[in-house]
Amino acid sequence: MKILKERIMKDGFIIGTKVLKVDSFLNHQIDVELFNEIGKEFKRRFSDDEVTKILTVEASGIGIACIAAQYFKVPVVFAKKHEATNLDSEVFESEVYSFTKNKNYKIRVSKQFLKKEDKVLIIDDFLANGNAAKGLISIVKQAGAEPTGVGIVIEKAFQDGRSKVEETGVRVESLAIVESMCEGNIVFK
Amino acid sequence: MKILKERIMKDGFIIGTKVLKVDSFLNHQIDVELFNEIGKEFKRRFSDDEVTKILTVEASGIGIACIAAQYFKVPVVFAKKHEATNLDSEVFESEVYSFTKNKNYKIRVSKQFLKKEDKVLIIDDFLANGNAAKGLISIVKQAGAEPTGVGIVIEKAFQDGRSKVEETGVRVESLAIVESMCEGNIVFK
Repeated sequence: MKILKERIMKDGFIIGTKVLKVDSFLNHQIDVELFNEIGKEFKRRFSDDEVTKILTVEASGIGIACIAAQYFKVPVVFAKKHEATNLDSEVFESEVYSFTKNKNYKIRVSKQFLKKEDKVLIIDDFLANGNAAKGLISIVKQAGAEPTGVGIVIEKAFQDGRSKVEETGVRVESLAIVESMCEGNIVFK
Repeated sequence: MKILKERIMKDGFIIGTKVLKVDSFLNHQIDVELFNEIGKEFKRRFSDDEVTKILTVEASGIGIACIAAQYFKVPVVFAKKHEATNLDSEVFESEVYSFTKNKNYKIRVSKQFLKKEDKVLIIDDFLANGNAAKGLISIVKQAGAEPTGVGIVIEKAFQDGRSKVEETGVRVESLAIVESMCEGNIVFK
C-alpha cells in the first residue's frame, strides 16, 4: 500500500534496527483520513471472505478496526487487556507475552460477543512476534467461530510473527511489510 | 439523542442504581453505525467551535473519537494510561482516580501532539465523577492549547462530573443524560 509506505518513510521514527515508532499517525496521534484508506484496502484484500465481526485488541487496534468496520458493515469487538470489574466473568481468555512491555498479560472477550456462527476478521496495528494475533485467534477458536483472516497495518518481517500465525492455518494480509530497518532507512518487501 | 437513548433502554444492563453496562454496543462490542450517528451529533453540537484536534483516553474513547473525527476532519490523539517503553519521555501528564477500578492511574500525551495553537475537543464514552475529563482538560491546558468542549456519550447526572468539569470553564455536551437508574428502568433528563 503505497500511501502507507510513503507515510512510514516520512513520519516513522526508527530506533536501532527493531523499533519503529509511528506515534504521529498510527498509535498515539491518529490520521483518520489515512485510516480510511487502510480500511478500504483491508476490504479489498478480504473482499472474497464472509466477515460477520472484526476483532481487535485494545488500545491501538480499536481506531483501525472501527474505521475499517465501516467498509465491512459489521460490529467491532475489542479484547480487553485488564481485568475490569465491569467485565462479565464469562469470558474467552488468552495469555499474551509482550516483548515491548516485557510482561505477560491476559486478553479477554465476553462470551456474549463471539458466537460459533461468526466469521471473524482479526485486525491489529503491528505484527512482530505474532503473540497478540495468536491470542486473538485462540479466542475466536474458543468461541467455536471461524477466524477468516488477520489484517495487519505494519508487519516486521524480520520477526517470526507471520510464520507463527500461518501455522494456525489463518491467512495474513499486511499493508506494509518491513524487511529491515536501520537509522534513517527502511526496506519494504 | 433519541436513537441512543432507545438503544440504552433496549441493550443497557443496569446493576444496582449506579452501574450501567453498555458492553454490547459501546465499550466492548462496538456498533459502528450507531457511532456514526454519535459522531454526526457531536459535529452538530460543536458546529460553531473551531476544532483542530480531538483528544480522548484509551481504550473506550478511541473508537468514538475516530468515527467522530471523520465529521470534524481533524486528527485524534488518545492519552495513554500506562507507561509504555515506546512512548516519548516528553509528555503532558495527569493523575486520574478511577472509581470503577478503585485506583489511581496516570494519563499521558506526548508533547509532540498538542501545541498551543490547538483547539481541542475532548470526547469520552462516560461522564460520571469527571476525573478523566478533568485530567484531559489539564493536559490540554499544560500544552497551552484551548479545550473547546467536552463531548460525552452517556452522562450519569446523579454523580458530580458535570459540575466539576464546568468549574474549569469548559462546556459539556452529553448525548444521553441519565438522571436515575434502578433495575429495569432508566430515567433520562
